[in-house]
Parts: sequence; structure tokens; C-alpha cells
Amino acid sequence: MKKVTEMTKEELLELKDGLEKQYEEFKAQGLKLDMSRGKPGSSQLDLTNGLLGALDDYHTEAGVDARNYGVLDGIPEAKKLFSDLLGIPAEKIIVGGSSSLNLMYDAMVRLMLFGTQGGKPWKDVEGIKWLCPSPGYDRHFAVTRELGLEMIPVPMKPDGPDMDVVEKLVAEDETIKGMWCVPLHSNPMGACCSDETVERLASMKTAAKDFRIFWDNAYGVHHIYEDVALKDILKAAAAHGNEDRILYFFSTSKITFPGAGVSIVASSLDNIAEIKKHMTIQTIGHDKLNQLRHVKYFKNADNIRAHMKKLGEALRPKFDMVLNTLKEELGDTGLASWVTPKGGYFVALDTLPGCAKETVALAKEAGVTMTGAGATWPYGKDPKDSNIRIAPSYPTLEELDKAIHLFCLCVKVAGVRKLLAEK
Amino acid sequence: MKKVTEMTKEELLELKDGLEKQYEEFKAQGLKLDMSRGKPGSSQLDLTNGLLGALDDYHTEAGVDARNYGVLDGIPEAKKLFSDLLGIPAEKIIVGGSSSLNLMYDAMVRLMLFGTQGGKPWKDVEGIKWLCPSPGYDRHFAVTRELGLEMIPVPMKPDGPDMDVVEKLVAEDETIKGMWCVPLHSNPMGACCSDETVERLASMKTAAKDFRIFWDNAYGVHHIYEDVALKDILKAAAAHGNEDRILYFFSTSKITFPGAGVSIVASSLDNIAEIKKHMTIQTIGHDKLNQLRHVKYFKNADNIRAHMKKLGEALRPKFDMVLNTLKEELGDTGLASWVTPKGGYFVALDTLPGCAKETVALAKEAGVTMTGAGATWPYGKDPKDSNIRIAPSYPTLEELDKAIHLFCLCVKVAGVRKLLAEK
Repeated sequence: MKKVTEMTKEELLELKDGLEKQYEEFKAQGLKLDMSRGKPGSSQLDLTNGLLGALDDYHTEAGVDARNYGVLDGIPEAKKLFSDLLGIPAEKIIVGGSSSLNLMYDAMVRLMLFGTQGGKPWKDVEGIKWLCPSPGYDRHFAVTRELGLEMIPVPMKPDGPDMDVVEKLVAEDETIKGMWCVPLHSNPMGACCSDETVERLASMKTAAKDFRIFWDNAYGVHHIYEDVALKDILKAAAAHGNEDRILYFFSTSKITFPGAGVSIVASSLDNIAEIKKHMTIQTIGHDKLNQLRHVKYFKNADNIRAHMKKLGEALRPKFDMVLNTLKEELGDTGLASWVTPKGGYFVALDTLPGCAKETVALAKEAGVTMTGAGATWPYGKDPKDSNIRIAPSYPTLEELDKAIHLFCLCVKVAGVRKLLAEK
Repeated sequence: MKKVTEMTKEELLELKDGLEKQYEEFKAQGLKLDMSRGKPGSSQLDLTNGLLGALDDYHTEAGVDARNYGVLDGIPEAKKLFSDLLGIPAEKIIVGGSSSLNLMYDAMVRLMLFGTQGGKPWKDVEGIKWLCPSPGYDRHFAVTRELGLEMIPVPMKPDGPDMDVVEKLVAEDETIKGMWCVPLHSNPMGACCSDETVERLASMKTAAKDFRIFWDNAYGVHHIYEDVALKDILKAAAAHGNEDRILYFFSTSKITFPGAGVSIVASSLDNIAEIKKHMTIQTIGHDKLNQLRHVKYFKNADNIRAHMKKLGEALRPKFDMVLNTLKEELGDTGLASWVTPKGGYFVALDTLPGCAKETVALAKEAGVTMTGAGATWPYGKDPKDSNIRIAPSYPTLEELDKAIHLFCLCVKVAGVRKLLAEK
């Protein structure tokens, strides 16, 4: 088949007619499907239903009554579980509530209100900027936006943020106070930080003394096609005297229950002490029973890894379906490109420039909700209007089949219209 | 018996010898008891152990999967439960995580960073002040202190904050932005806001347009000796066009499990909308399974009330013991005064001026930990050094018996020493 991008006006017009007819047929089906959020499907959640009844006792190993007040930073066995899973010393871990996003928000708020390690509160510093590897996670960008930080997109490459760009920016500008980074199976690009990227992030010179990397390892054990190892950034940073630079976040949101999991923040001992100093004003402690429930259910890190294998197997058919359909429907058209992720929750697709918004609008009109076009960029502004995040996890396979076919059709309709408009 | 305060120097010296001998005997017992925090005892917590297994299904009434992401402001049936219990319309309620202190801290942080209802962010206003009815709750004071608000103590009377003082201050000074208030069985005084106090708080003129009352109804259904009704402050404030003034907090921390309960914030519809606007940046939602667990366990508000009767009965012997012992040991001495609470978690005692610190230090030395002297005042500074908070809930009756006797002895030792020093 001839590439659509190489077609004549006449060929395009004919193609457009056919596609729009197909689109109307889809619309007539009255679909109501959602591929907008990285939300696990129910069958995935069923795999950890044992968690609901896992609490056979409410005492911690040390004999503490987990029903009662106390233990600000998490029960020791929960710290150990995450320590074993992620290779972070337990004393560098604080176990929080069900939301790691909340831990990130709170961490950012503390930097604003109080500063860190003796530095000026960020609220008192003019024109703070923040690096946002893009395409990236819309909720990250929402946090930095809400707090008034100027967001600077930096390119996201398959092996992590473009370090040439990052290094240059942070070395020169002391108002650049930090950056977001999802180091493994990044949202939405599926990028995985190489050892070199981690090493460069850990060692780079920053003009800001209180530069912080929000290391959101949300998909740290969420492999689907390939197990990917991640270099230990806390250790790497410590080797360069930069351990305070790293705030490491993780959660079981996509291991057990998104609505009722356990989250952690890990960092240098100095940062952990500082966080606890503020945290003790904010709360008496997070839900210890839920921490204990998770420990009793999994027992050890190997069981989490085994469970993640099952989850990966449960997700793989969905990713297969998306990737195969994209290939079949769009592979030879020249209308889109995408990256095959090794894990995580997303497939990121790029349409022809200027087509993402229309594609998403077309899908929406026909009953399939995608993540809003632009959402993967700071301020919702995709400079090329081309990036779309596909989240295949929530629909059933049958629903996904319909949704992704419709989506491909929308990519084509928008693409052909665009090409025609340029003729 | 002659009042100790009326004794001659010789009588005091003799008394002191006897008391110090008793004190040494106590010390020799090597006690290790804790009356420092309002922490329920294990036998109290046992009364809701059914909660641990209450989750027979994970769907809400509306069919939402509570395991998954979503429902930012709490599941509807949890809102209804609190609505029925407190008489607050469900749409004015947000259900949070396990800690209402965290909700208060977050609310205060939002006022600092963003302001409210179009007003200037408080971080940009010089010299903000906050009224602190005192003696009051140390964790409240810690929040306002951490955020840099200047705390102004106002007297706490048996029917709530001294409204003559409050009204005068807030009418004159627009940098006074709000106040703490525990309206029922206040920590530590056991004060209960009368209808008149509520009405005056709701209607008073404030120089600050964005004046806020943090209405921490922590002991709203925690009656021990007498059921006390509380006038509806949201309704009262609404009648005067001041509903935005009220941020109403409540939790099940001392109904079910302190470490794993459910909290709420309630306010005007405008405030609720504003809170949700920020909250949606901070988190995807709080633990819905725990909300559902509470709903399934209690089923309705009447069952909570019935449970609170049981809890009141469980606490009453402890309060009886404290109050009876205080009366027996200190009643005729003139060395202390205290208030008999109708409910809540505390008995507040006043020593002779200048004796609280020494009393607490003496108790500590003999193995009984009390709340730090001064803790019930902003900045930990009790101007008279006389207020001590007694928290009888955590020890067993047997432990409490020893602890409160020792405590009374310490009050006497410190009092006699003080009187002698003044001779």
C-alpha cells in the first residue's frame, strides 16, 4: 500500500470518503469506552483480593498495636518489604498513605514553604523553574503548575531525559530547582533510564544548591515484555555527594489496589530527618493497618515480583492488541509513529503534527475517551499537537479491540484531513 | 484537714518530709506508665475489631469498585454516614484519609499558598495572627507555629472561648485570620461551646474578610458523663452569610481505630468546591476501601451512637478513678483545681502558679509520663506554669491507680516546695 503521506489529492479525497463512512458506522454503534487513564482493569485487581482478608492480627512484629496512634514513618516490616524490593536501606524510607502523588505534592509544598537543608523557602525565590521531561505525566505537571513553578519541557528520549539538554540548563540557571523523572517505563513514552542517564543525573553540576529530582519510580517493577534493571540513583548520587538531590517515590497503587495501596518516599538520611520533622506536625501517622495488611499478604519482596509477573501476563494481551492493531492499521500509512514499551501502562503515539487534538475529539465523539491531547506536555501545550497517550489497561480485551480500531480510524481521518488541507 | 496553702512554715516543712519520703518509695517501684496522650486503651479498640473483617465486598452502593482509582471526595455512603451523625448535608462533606489533623494541616497550607475565595495568599500577608483558646491542643498550636502564624492565646471558659475577648480582637485587627476551636469536650479543658458561644462565633464581625474558624469537633460524639448537644455552626454561620468562615473537622480516630480511621472536612459549598479544586492536584483520592469498611461495619449513625455509649462506659471508670483520686488527695489542700469534664479524653488540672513544670518533672522521674507542662499553651509557654493535661484513657485501671496517686503526690511535693520557697 502506498503511504498516505505520499498520496495525491485525488487519492486522499477518495480515502477520506471511505474513512469518514467507516467513522460514521462506528459512531452509530454508540460506544462508551475509556482509554484515558492508567487504571488497572478489575480482573487485574482480582489477583490481589487476598489482601482484603490478609489482616489476621493487628500487631506488628515488634508488638506495636497497629490499630492505635503512633509510628509516624511507617511500620518497620513495611519499610523492610520496600527496602528488599527496591534495594533502598530501610532507614532511608518513609511509608505513607495510599497515594504517592500526595507524597510528591507534600514534598513540593514543603520545599515551597520551608525550603530544604537550610536553603531559602522556594516561595521567597523569584521565578523558580522546573524541568519537565516531555511527553510526561499530566499529574506531575499539574503539581508544579499549581505551585507556580515555571515548567520547562526537555526532550524525553528512549533512555530517559535528554541529558545534554538537562546538564546544560541546570548548570547555568540557579532558578532551575529540580525536575520530574519517571525512570522506568515512563508515562507515557515507556522510556527507561539507562545507567548512563542515572549516573549523569546523579553527578551533574547544578547551579541551584537545593536542586531536587522527583524520582517517581511508579512502574519500577511493572515489566510486561522485558525486565528492565534500574541503576540505584540514591547510591549513585551519594557517590558524588548529591544524595540529598534525590526524592524517590514508589507505591503499590498498580501492584495491589490503586484506591487503597501503600506509598513510600525515600531519600538521604538528612532529607528523611527533615521530612519527618515536618511530617510530625502534619499527622500522627499514616494507616498502619493497611501497611501491615500489605506485609502480611506479600510476606516478602520475591512474592511481589512473582505477582508482578502475573500482572505483566495479564496486561500483555492488551498491549499486544494495541501494538498489533496500530501496526496493521497505521504501520504503512506514515500517519503515525509510536514506541513499543517494555512495561508500564501506556503506549504513546505521535500523529502527524497538528492532528492530536482532532484525533482525540473524533474518538470522543464516537464514544471513546482518550487522555486529552496535550495532556502529556506542561500547561497542556503540545508544541506539535501530535502526542497521544493510549492507556490499554482498563477496558476488557473485547472493548479494547473496538476502541483501538476506532482510535486508529480517527488517526487516519484526522491525518488525511490535515494532508488535504495542506494541498 | 488544714489547707496546705494556709500552713505555717513549720507545718509545711513537716509535710514536705513526709511527702518526699512517699515520693522516694514510689520511685523505688520503678513504674513505667504513660498518661501523656489521648490514646485509647487496647480494650477500647477491641470493641471495634469487627471492623477488620467488615469488608465483605468492595463495591460501593453505586457499583463503583472501591479498590480502583477515583472518587476524590469520598464515597457517597460514607458522606451519608457522617451527614446523619453530625447533621451536615452530605454535599458539604469531603471524606479524607485516616487523619483529620492532616486535613487541618492541608487546609492551613492551602490558605497560606493560595488564599481563599479570591483573597490574597496568606504567605503574602505580613504578620498574620491566629487566636488560640488556651489551654488547648498542642498539635493545633504546632500547625500554626510551623506555618509561622503568630499565636494569640485567648481564655477558654467552660462554655467555650471567651467571646468578649474574641469579638473585640477579631473586629479590630484584620491580620487576625482565624482561630482554633474544639467545640465539645475540649482538649484539655473539657469545655463545651454553648449555643450562645456558637451563635457569637457564627455572627461576629471580623476585620479579616477571609477569617476562618478551624472547628475541630474531635470529641463530637464522645460523651462520658453527660450527652452534650452542639448547636449547628454551619447553619448558624450561613444565617449570617458567614458559612465560608467555618472549616469543620471530624474523624473516627477515637471511634474506631486511631491509626486507621476515616476523617472528614465539612464547609460551605463554595469552600468544598475550592478544596476539591486543589485536592484533585494533590491526590487521586483517599482510601475508599477503608471508607467502605467503616460504612459496612456501622451501617448507620445510630449504631455509631450506640457504640459511643459503650466507649463512654469503658472510659468512665478511668475518669472516675482520676476524679475521685484528685478529690481525695488534693481536694482540701488548696494546691490544685480541676474541671470535671462531661466527655472527651482529658482532665485538666491547675497547680499553684509555677508548679506545673516541677510536678511533671517529678512524675517523670518516678516513671509516669504526663503531657509536657506548657504543652497546652501556644509556644509551650503557660504564663502561670500551672496547667497539666491528664490523659487517663491509655493505661489500664490498675496502672492508672498507681499513676494518678503518684501524680497527686507530685502536685503536693511541688506545691509545698513552692509555698516554702515563698515563706
